[in-house]
Amino acid sequence: MDPRIREHAAVIVDHSVGLDAGDNVVIDAHPVSEDLVAALHEKIADVGANPLVIQQRLGKRFRRAYLRNHDGEFEVPEHERALFEAMDVYIAIRADANVSEESDIDGDVQTAYSQARQPLLEERLGKTWCLTQYPAAANAQLAELSTEAYENFVYDAVLKDWDAVRDHQQQMCDIMNGAAEVRIVSGETTDVTMSVEGNETLNDYGENNLPGGEVFTAPVPDSVEGEVYFDKPVYQRGQEITGARLVFEDGEAVEWSAEKNEDVLDDILTTDEGARRLGELGIGMNRDIDRFTYNMLFDEKMGDTVHMAVGRAYTECVGEGNEQNHSAVHVDMIVDMSEDSFIEVDGEIVQRNGTFRFEDGFSEE
Amino acid sequence: MDPRIREHAAVIVDHSVGLDAGDNVVIDAHPVSEDLVAALHEKIADVGANPLVIQQRLGKRFRRAYLRNHDGEFEVPEHERALFEAMDVYIAIRADANVSEESDIDGDVQTAYSQARQPLLEERLGKTWCLTQYPAAANAQLAELSTEAYENFVYDAVLKDWDAVRDHQQQMCDIMNGAAEVRIVSGETTDVTMSVEGNETLNDYGENNLPGGEVFTAPVPDSVEGEVYFDKPVYQRGQEITGARLVFEDGEAVEWSAEKNEDVLDDILTTDEGARRLGELGIGMNRDIDRFTYNMLFDEKMGDTVHMAVGRAYTECVGEGNEQNHSAVHVDMIVDMSEDSFIEVDGEIVQRNGTFRFEDGFSEE
Repeated sequence: MDPRIREHAAVIVDHSVGLDAGDNVVIDAHPVSEDLVAALHEKIADVGANPLVIQQRLGKRFRRAYLRNHDGEFEVPEHERALFEAMDVYIAIRADANVSEESDIDGDVQTAYSQARQPLLEERLGKTWCLTQYPAAANAQLAELSTEAYENFVYDAVLKDWDAVRDHQQQMCDIMNGAAEVRIVSGETTDVTMSVEGNETLNDYGENNLPGGEVFTAPVPDSVEGEVYFDKPVYQRGQEITGARLVFEDGEAVEWSAEKNEDVLDDILTTDEGARRLGELGIGMNRDIDRFTYNMLFDEKMGDTVHMAVGRAYTECVGEGNEQNHSAVHVDMIVDMSEDSFIEVDGEIVQRNGTFRFEDGFSEE
Repeated sequence: MDPRIREHAAVIVDHSVGLDAGDNVVIDAHPVSEDLVAALHEKIADVGANPLVIQQRLGKRFRRAYLRNHDGEFEVPEHERALFEAMDVYIAIRADANVSEESDIDGDVQTAYSQARQPLLEERLGKTWCLTQYPAAANAQLAELSTEAYENFVYDAVLKDWDAVRDHQQQMCDIMNGAAEVRIVSGETTDVTMSVEGNETLNDYGENNLPGGEVFTAPVPDSVEGEVYFDKPVYQRGQEITGARLVFEDGEAVEWSAEKNEDVLDDILTTDEGARRLGELGIGMNRDIDRFTYNMLFDEKMGDTVHMAVGRAYTECVGEGNEQNHSAVHVDMIVDMSEDSFIEVDGEIVQRNGTFRFEDGFSEE
């Protein structure tokens, strides 16, 4: 076994979920991540916790077989609910045998299934949880990398000194928290402002998401003004939207276009009221993620980028008395900030061309 | 997908567990049986039931990683208990990537783990359940068959008209039920008698076990007298016991030997008091199982054989007021009845050289 797999398991158990003796753990994993699941069992035994492996959330082939043959309403299965209620820790491992496995499931059926299972999602999110990635061949293929190169990419992003990451990123959280207005400018195509007043900017250092490496908050829904061009493709339901451009007025997207698959962008933005408003502003700070791999778990943490999500805002980011944006969707889209770009907070430039004010090489102009 | 995989799924869902709409199903499966698990999801969706896939009982590599690193007492994990309590139907699919995966786990640790998890086993056995086999390459290897030949073997044994099997086998149950004494004779080496008075002979036609194909009962514990030579190897904890011979007096094995791995036989018979007494007499009646494959799910149903298990008796077989044999073990061993052999019930020959009294070609002498 690649020794980095056992290191990965150790980071998950010791850092991300901080496992304790007696904890009842559910591991939700595709079989291609078998090595990591075995390594997790070693660590879980060391700690004296209790593992159970399921293949629900990520068993895409099984879900496809089920959904293509299902008819009628969906219910919340009582045995799954009982399992999630009784578990203490949930570890989800992303990995695929074929990333297009769900490409021939009816979109409406997928949506109905997800909506019906919302209580299970909430139950899971109420526990200690971690979402991570195993470098499977199919995911390497999606990233247009050899499997070995992709393994290196994943482990470079995951096997970090997360305490040092936390301290470094906290500097940006401190700048954002207490601030009123954020402006994002990139080239001629992106210039957008939004209020973050009263909302909290959180520090993601590899707990719920592994890799971590971003700070993120919720814009005040009605405050977003300006236009954004998303340089990086958005991969949704097996389709790639490229060159998406959105214009916001009073917080709402009033105009949009895309170079490829504009109809998919239409579908997303017309899902509900909240889908046309921003639910998240995130700033990627993991410089070991140096390329786009069509995997939001990594892409949104890429160094020298920001991302904005249309749709649902995270409750933890929304300050008391502030409005939270609700939606059935949460779709992240990425702006490249490496050139001819800056982030302004309350009128002061805090990042230029990807370099933060608190880093070497920062220049205000 | 081999069309027989979908037929197998249909037999499990429609016949073995008789699935109903709304049933909460747990499928316990090794990843190598992925095709059958996918086919089951189609059927489960058709019926309107709810599937959840786990890899606990049969995820041998994970269990090995866990058990080799575990220290101290085992507990019954509350999340597993909650899951099993809330489920309606349990489907276990046997299949291996490597049948020797557990060969380097300490035997005492395995025993302690199994004993601690006894309440989970009882919870499962209290639900509707089915144990079946997927024809994986490693299981074909154990049977010394090519994978394709093994697939044919498995599907011939599994895809049968189980209603016809039930009716055919019921004739043997009717002979046994109400009888007092059974005698099994084979060649010069096996001649054993036992009382089955007051106990019930059950008909296994593919419900809990798929394939089914046996009738079985419990001997009255103290009644077993005589000697038995087991022609077929016994595969226990990754080791093969061959040529086992047991001599019974007043129901207890008082003398035993084996040609190979006699120490493993010693270990089994000295586990506890009940391990030296017979817990089961079974009569194999599935003639599509025409060879030994080191897999008791098939071997014990082989046509022209009987099997006797030392150890635990099945509660369902033990008549009211009769003693039930208790033990931590239940180890089946097989006698070839195809030549120079007969079964006598209350002094009448009911099978000779594998042919039953109610079948063509039966001759009393």
